[in-house]
Amino acid sequence: MDERIDERMMDDKPHEECGVFGVFGHENAAIVTYYALVALQHRGQEAAGIAAVEAGSMYSHRGLGLLADVFANGELDALPGRAAIGHVRYSTAGSNTVQNAQPITVRTYQGNLAMAHNGNLVNAHVLRRRLEELGSLFQSSSDTEVVLHLIARKQEDTLLENIRQSLHDIRGGYALVFLSDDQLVAARDPLGLRPLCIGRLGDGYVVASESCAFETIGAVFLRDVAPGEIIAMDAAGLHSLPMYPDAKASEEPRRTAMCTFEHIYFARPDSDIDGWNVHAVRKQLGRILAEQHGVAADIVIGVPDSSISAASGYAEKSGIPYEMGLVKNKYIARTFIQPSQGQRDLGVRLKLNAVRSVVQGLRVVLVDDSIVRGTTIRRIVSMLREAGAVEVHVRISSPPYRHPCHYGIDTSSKGQLVAADHSVSEICAEIGADSLEFLTVPELMSAFGLAAQGPYPFCNACFTGEYPTEIHEVDKLGNEPVVSAKQRVKEAVR
Amino acid sequence: MDERIDERMMDDKPHEECGVFGVFGHENAAIVTYYALVALQHRGQEAAGIAAVEAGSMYSHRGLGLLADVFANGELDALPGRAAIGHVRYSTAGSNTVQNAQPITVRTYQGNLAMAHNGNLVNAHVLRRRLEELGSLFQSSSDTEVVLHLIARKQEDTLLENIRQSLHDIRGGYALVFLSDDQLVAARDPLGLRPLCIGRLGDGYVVASESCAFETIGAVFLRDVAPGEIIAMDAAGLHSLPMYPDAKASEEPRRTAMCTFEHIYFARPDSDIDGWNVHAVRKQLGRILAEQHGVAADIVIGVPDSSISAASGYAEKSGIPYEMGLVKNKYIARTFIQPSQGQRDLGVRLKLNAVRSVVQGLRVVLVDDSIVRGTTIRRIVSMLREAGAVEVHVRISSPPYRHPCHYGIDTSSKGQLVAADHSVSEICAEIGADSLEFLTVPELMSAFGLAAQGPYPFCNACFTGEYPTEIHEVDKLGNEPVVSAKQRVKEAVR
Amino acid sequence: MDERIDERMMDDKPHEECGVFGVFGHENAAIVTYYALVALQHRGQEAAGIAAVEAGSMYSHRGLGLLADVFANGELDALPGRAAIGHVRYSTAGSNTVQNAQPITVRTYQGNLAMAHNGNLVNAHVLRRRLEELGSLFQSSSDTEVVLHLIARKQEDTLLENIRQSLHDIRGGYALVFLSDDQLVAARDPLGLRPLCIGRLGDGYVVASESCAFETIGAVFLRDVAPGEIIAMDAAGLHSLPMYPDAKASEEPRRTAMCTFEHIYFARPDSDIDGWNVHAVRKQLGRILAEQHGVAADIVIGVPDSSISAASGYAEKSGIPYEMGLVKNKYIARTFIQPSQGQRDLGVRLKLNAVRSVVQGLRVVLVDDSIVRGTTIRRIVSMLREAGAVEVHVRISSPPYRHPCHYGIDTSSKGQLVAADHSVSEICAEIGADSLEFLTVPELMSAFGLAAQGPYPFCNACFTGEYPTEIHEVDKLGNEPVVSAKQRVKEAVR
Amino acid sequence: MDERIDERMMDDKPHEECGVFGVFGHENAAIVTYYALVALQHRGQEAAGIAAVEAGSMYSHRGLGLLADVFANGELDALPGRAAIGHVRYSTAGSNTVQNAQPITVRTYQGNLAMAHNGNLVNAHVLRRRLEELGSLFQSSSDTEVVLHLIARKQEDTLLENIRQSLHDIRGGYALVFLSDDQLVAARDPLGLRPLCIGRLGDGYVVASESCAFETIGAVFLRDVAPGEIIAMDAAGLHSLPMYPDAKASEEPRRTAMCTFEHIYFARPDSDIDGWNVHAVRKQLGRILAEQHGVAADIVIGVPDSSISAASGYAEKSGIPYEMGLVKNKYIARTFIQPSQGQRDLGVRLKLNAVRSVVQGLRVVLVDDSIVRGTTIRRIVSMLREAGAVEVHVRISSPPYRHPCHYGIDTSSKGQLVAADHSVSEICAEIGADSLEFLTVPELMSAFGLAAQGPYPFCNACFTGEYPTEIHEVDKLGNEPVVSAKQRVKEAVR
Repeated sequence: MDERIDERMMDDKPHEECGVFGVFGHENAAIVTYYALVALQHRGQEAAGIAAVEAGSMYSHRGLGLLADVFANGELDALPGRAAIGHVRYSTAGSNTVQNAQPITVRTYQGNLAMAHNGNLVNAHVLRRRLEELGSLFQSSSDTEVVLHLIARKQEDTLLENIRQSLHDIRGGYALVFLSDDQLVAARDPLGLRPLCIGRLGDGYVVASESCAFETIGAVFLRDVAPGEIIAMDAAGLHSLPMYPDAKASEEPRRTAMCTFEHIYFARPDSDIDGWNVHAVRKQLGRILAEQHGVAADIVIGVPDSSISAASGYAEKSGIPYEMGLVKNKYIARTFIQPSQGQRDLGVRLKLNAVRSVVQGLRVVLVDDSIVRGTTIRRIVSMLREAGAVEVHVRISSPPYRHPCHYGIDTSSKGQLVAADHSVSEICAEIGADSLEFLTVPELMSAFGLAAQGPYPFCNACFTGEYPTEIHEVDKLGNEPVVSAKQRVKEAVR
Repeated sequence: MDERIDERMMDDKPHEECGVFGVFGHENAAIVTYYALVALQHRGQEAAGIAAVEAGSMYSHRGLGLLADVFANGELDALPGRAAIGHVRYSTAGSNTVQNAQPITVRTYQGNLAMAHNGNLVNAHVLRRRLEELGSLFQSSSDTEVVLHLIARKQEDTLLENIRQSLHDIRGGYALVFLSDDQLVAARDPLGLRPLCIGRLGDGYVVASESCAFETIGAVFLRDVAPGEIIAMDAAGLHSLPMYPDAKASEEPRRTAMCTFEHIYFARPDSDIDGWNVHAVRKQLGRILAEQHGVAADIVIGVPDSSISAASGYAEKSGIPYEMGLVKNKYIARTFIQPSQGQRDLGVRLKLNAVRSVVQGLRVVLVDDSIVRGTTIRRIVSMLREAGAVEVHVRISSPPYRHPCHYGIDTSSKGQLVAADHSVSEICAEIGADSLEFLTVPELMSAFGLAAQGPYPFCNACFTGEYPTEIHEVDKLGNEPVVSAKQRVKEAVR
Repeated sequence: MDERIDERMMDDKPHEECGVFGVFGHENAAIVTYYALVALQHRGQEAAGIAAVEAGSMYSHRGLGLLADVFANGELDALPGRAAIGHVRYSTAGSNTVQNAQPITVRTYQGNLAMAHNGNLVNAHVLRRRLEELGSLFQSSSDTEVVLHLIARKQEDTLLENIRQSLHDIRGGYALVFLSDDQLVAARDPLGLRPLCIGRLGDGYVVASESCAFETIGAVFLRDVAPGEIIAMDAAGLHSLPMYPDAKASEEPRRTAMCTFEHIYFARPDSDIDGWNVHAVRKQLGRILAEQHGVAADIVIGVPDSSISAASGYAEKSGIPYEMGLVKNKYIARTFIQPSQGQRDLGVRLKLNAVRSVVQGLRVVLVDDSIVRGTTIRRIVSMLREAGAVEVHVRISSPPYRHPCHYGIDTSSKGQLVAADHSVSEICAEIGADSLEFLTVPELMSAFGLAAQGPYPFCNACFTGEYPTEIHEVDKLGNEPVVSAKQRVKEAVR
Repeated sequence: MDERIDERMMDDKPHEECGVFGVFGHENAAIVTYYALVALQHRGQEAAGIAAVEAGSMYSHRGLGLLADVFANGELDALPGRAAIGHVRYSTAGSNTVQNAQPITVRTYQGNLAMAHNGNLVNAHVLRRRLEELGSLFQSSSDTEVVLHLIARKQEDTLLENIRQSLHDIRGGYALVFLSDDQLVAARDPLGLRPLCIGRLGDGYVVASESCAFETIGAVFLRDVAPGEIIAMDAAGLHSLPMYPDAKASEEPRRTAMCTFEHIYFARPDSDIDGWNVHAVRKQLGRILAEQHGVAADIVIGVPDSSISAASGYAEKSGIPYEMGLVKNKYIARTFIQPSQGQRDLGVRLKLNAVRSVVQGLRVVLVDDSIVRGTTIRRIVSMLREAGAVEVHVRISSPPYRHPCHYGIDTSSKGQLVAADHSVSEICAEIGADSLEFLTVPELMSAFGLAAQGPYPFCNACFTGEYPTEIHEVDKLGNEPVVSAKQRVKEAVR
């Protein structure tokens, strides 16, 4: 068990905490959801679940692991109906329990309700404490359960209105999908921190964290859900309603704070988010790196897989050939069991190999999308030098990652952010590169076609520390109370 | 999946719905609980779980299957602390989901709380409806969650007092164990419908559904928990408190209604319940059968395993030799996968074989403890005849089972009770016996040394229809709403 | 892995090394074989396999574990044809590998051949050495492969004749079944050491180690295979041929040496072997014990499950009531995973419990069928005393087990035979009994109706040391070369 | 089971049949072998095994599935010693059984011997027949067992010499590794059809199918094993001996016939084979495609993952930008369970997605490395058109694949080779491309720096039909006799 290599330890990247999907009006709703979640699997590989509704009964299945594992024994066949929602989850250590898997399905006085959630609430702890005092029972440590308790206690006429009222109580970044006995409801936070989009599938509708899910199931992309928009799908069709209906239509556009890291690293390159194609943005980031942070070199190498687009942009702009100087072993699954004896002493390089015959004697530009702790990039630089590279110049297609995210991205528990207390030259020394350069925030923004002076419709808090919402002290610790290592193989309630 | 032979289909018996156990004050609390539950495994084989508490953190693991399956991967090692409770569950079709496995662990405003439950509440549906209207969220279909919500909404000074107050709201048969951050609480329903007993283990204490669990872990039996008694164990020792403290000590003993079926069939023969040894009662039932319902025959055969005691009592009293005319295959597990092709046509007798060389040419008295649907006893009678028995006289060591139980025993969903609408002679014809006799209720009671005219301290409702509590119409259906076959492999919330 | 309790360690009995079955001429040959092997599962629980033949292709599947595990994933569906053979295996530590599972299927110049084997050859080592020198390759450590190599090198006209010639080379106890492209061949060793019988199933025929398999599949028992008889089944029907056709029909009956331990312990009580019903023999052994070795006592208890027949015979003869003073937990599977922490200190009694309310204050006669090491009976005696028994008199329904078996029964690797170097009174002291008595060999033989002076048609070598064959020195060590504990989880070739 | 998507069906590529590895003189020999095999996992994902030797005992474990599955339960810990060999296997339908997994371990008169094999023998069937007639028993359908039987029957003084003599009997392509009690022996076929190379690891030596294994374990590449060379490693060091020692050193270099498909598709891009870096060769193939088969277009797209190198070469040479127009879902494992209901109707695109925002309105050059049946490329072309590509020009970085391979590459059982009986323009129509061009054999050869007129040291038989060895009629069918679909889940011996 504990001998598994956690890929998170190996790839040293921030992590998205979830992907959501919903479909209303398709005869194979659960199966469609399954395939869509497979396309969203990169957003979470530690738990998955689907809830479906038919004739007033809610059916669900969820479990730990990849979609293919969780639904390996015919469970999909037991999820009937024409509407379903689903979820894939990445989770921090200690909370990887079935209880925290989603969707969570509950019974309220207004009927069945299932809910799935991508993001993080910054006032979850406060709300949870208050609800406990009112006699609400919590069975998990997830924000999702907080939202459900809020809904169950509202006294509006409809479940939809109860949902809307409950959203007024929560703060943070979120893309939510709800499934009731006769409706599918989706909501995106007012700042647009987490992505969510709508598509059409036959006579029905779909929502997803990313548009790549639509391509997989043959759905047609319609549009992004607007920040602060609630979408309801039911027998009468698709409805859009504002989260705050009383808000005056102001003359100025509302402030938004969409997550740049979705474009830099998380999202699949074939997704379009808020009007930008992810691959195209990444390639443009590479071109800007070449323009603004160029260096004399013989070849360009990208760290597979996420930095390939940026690296090819760098190569194209600089005219330096792009080469496959690093090869990834595609048979190393996310968690890979290592034998117990002496494996660390072997210095095994299972996941990535440098290619001697490609890099020997050459000056290398190594493009990566971000540096969190710096441990992996240091190993890669060292690997390239051992393979004969005479110079290794590291170029990062984003600014230094200095501040923890409170809106659904996990980095902090993985150890300190190296850029939080090290200068660029210190990091350069630390990772053993000949030179190291990052993009600036204005350069990053220019890849989206935005003027340098701003204001930007994006959240760059992880680079700047300027959070678009208040952060409650207690929630700065993150959603998860500190738990001991023991909790890994069990259910924990604290 | 669906090719598994469900032993319930094969053995055609009523089923206990659970076993509970708790230990306070032992350094290996979870392990002790594990072994005790193994001894209680006959009370439920479909789910199991253990919760343990240490230093203000609650740790739990539960899952579907036998103990050995649920805790096969080191999960016990992640359950620290000196106090633990555990549960084994038999469950009706449709609710066999991880959500319904126990103990359920929750967070209340007074801290962590885990709970496990054997029995059935007759007003669960009413309470549940009322709680939902107050904004309580239900994540399972179990009675246990109802009790927890009641507790979470009480406003007494202590969790123990909140538990006591909540028990005032519930009706039915139950043996409950609770684990909080610093206490273990156990309670038996006022009628004593479900059994519960106390023991001592080293410096600590234990509670269990049956005393056989004590023998396994080396604990010393102290006494049965009295009907309507609450037991609390904490750092200060063992405390007994009445469920209704204000009730005057009346001159007359309180009415009790202990379940006779625990003695007839459910409990392990080596358990002592409310002062009677189960094997001794069964043997006495066999003796009474011989005395009151004797028949000329050559050999006595008991249906293995549960009717062996009664059959040996019959043999002893009648002087007719007891023989092993039926052999059970001990390698047929509870659920046994059958190959798909044509197995029904083969007329395979995997579980029981009649022994030709024992029965050929002889007149057989076949002793069984009860008849529910009558399908299995019909097959056994037929098997004995094919093996050469010239007469088969069936003697049942209990009265005809005519009425559904509402206190924690499951029969109804298994099909109709044959005795509900058939006379004894009709049943005799149905099962193909040469003669069939049952015990009467007074005969049954006499095995406990009780006078024929009563009153009896036992619940005989399944034989007489005289239920010791009111039964709400809606709860007559049983705790479980009717669910479709599809729900077998998934989580269901209705 | 290594925390599993090996039941062999717990029950301290000799072990049969296998069960075999074959069917020719049934449309569901593999399924019939599966069910028959389930009925023979008591003869081996560590590996199982089936081979079937259709249209010149041999299909097989074998694996480690119980039948239900080995064929859990539809493997039976891939075994077509109207003829099949099967095997269940008990195996000594170190050789429990898939390679040693049976049937073994090979390709010879005369076509496909599969073979399964119960028993042990006393000259296997010598034959193996000789074959290796001739260029034969061994892929397992089983005797079976030796026989197959012998067959492959014979040059007779038919495969059947090659088989017969090969049997002339081997010495020991065996029941063999072979499956070729168009024939099923079965053979029993000339001394009849291992049992084998023939039945009819529809238009086809079956062979099995024990007749209980016939009852399960609805086959009709025809007769035992005679010692030294070869049975061939093919499209032309059932053929019997002598292993040594040239042997003169002598006036005197040939010497046989059938294994008494099949009757004492191994076989299922509902089997008939060589004309005796196993349960009836055991009950008679109990009666003789009572007659010849009686003692004043209050109750008789048998060690479940194998000694129940003998104990009831003792009770019947002595007039002392038979009681259920020991209860076995039927949910303890053969191998049962124990948690790692401190379980030994808990003194857990998972498998057997003594029943205080049955034995307290009484003098007990405890009947068991045999004593090998004596460890288990010592624990049971101690358990009965702790439960309040005032005297415990042990009566064993066989003579002292003093000599290792070389014909297919495993005891030696389990540690020394306590009776080999201890007197009865020493063993009595060792196990803590008030008295201990065994049957004598003539008493044992009298249960079969044989005169005390003999000669007996049985092998009693384990009691007397008089082996009915020569034993090669090298093979006295047993079939299996000594292997290290490490070999448990891997394939070993030595 | 049968709902799994077989990736072979999806990617429509020829398949390598195995990878081998060996290490002599390392204290963690089995662990080193494990990691090396992980690096070679692309050469076979259906079975894996390792054999290790210590102190005259051979230890081995093999099973079906990926390395990580086969060695998931501590099996490596049971493989001691300083020498080990290992194998990963791709296998044709019908032979994917544990029996056919390798290494095969046997006992010969000269001691233990284990063997692993990559390649195919063209006279296996003839040899097998002859050996069967001599009394050799075959337990699998693999060529490996043929070689072992040959060795077991030779009568030379040493096992090494027996191996050498046996190699004289076999014809075809092979890379073999043997492990005896004190030696590791490796051999490459005289034509060099299958690759094999030597490295140094600490004080010991390693051999592997590809050099990428060395990088992973930190070994230093020494050189390729020469065609027709035998390498022996033992306590005395590394020895090279010619397969035919008596062959005169001729003036002319010996003819070789190394497999071009290793470079075109099979090998990992970071391997060096016979002096060429695989990625560099592929990139050069792309450049030649651009030069000789260029077309006006807007973007170049490679089919991931194997055609990325060629596509980047094409882009570099043509000046047309390389874009990520196809995205692969990295969470689709090799075998991926599909739910049963109506999945085909959904037209799901799980594995590859075309990126609309990249390709819309553009003319695409789509580079792939080969076409076998043409089904996958047709789906990709169609996907690109649906995503808005206005033209799709397919360029293949190899000549048309027209003839089956008899040296260890599997295509034939996957259906017909489309190029065998279709012209290029017919294939172009079939796959729906706007244009389709292949490389010629001289163009292919020029990527290795070889003159157009030859002679080439490569085997191009799959393109030209000119096989470098005789092919026995019976072996043209391939090593595996035709077997029915039923055989998929079982062991087969024919």
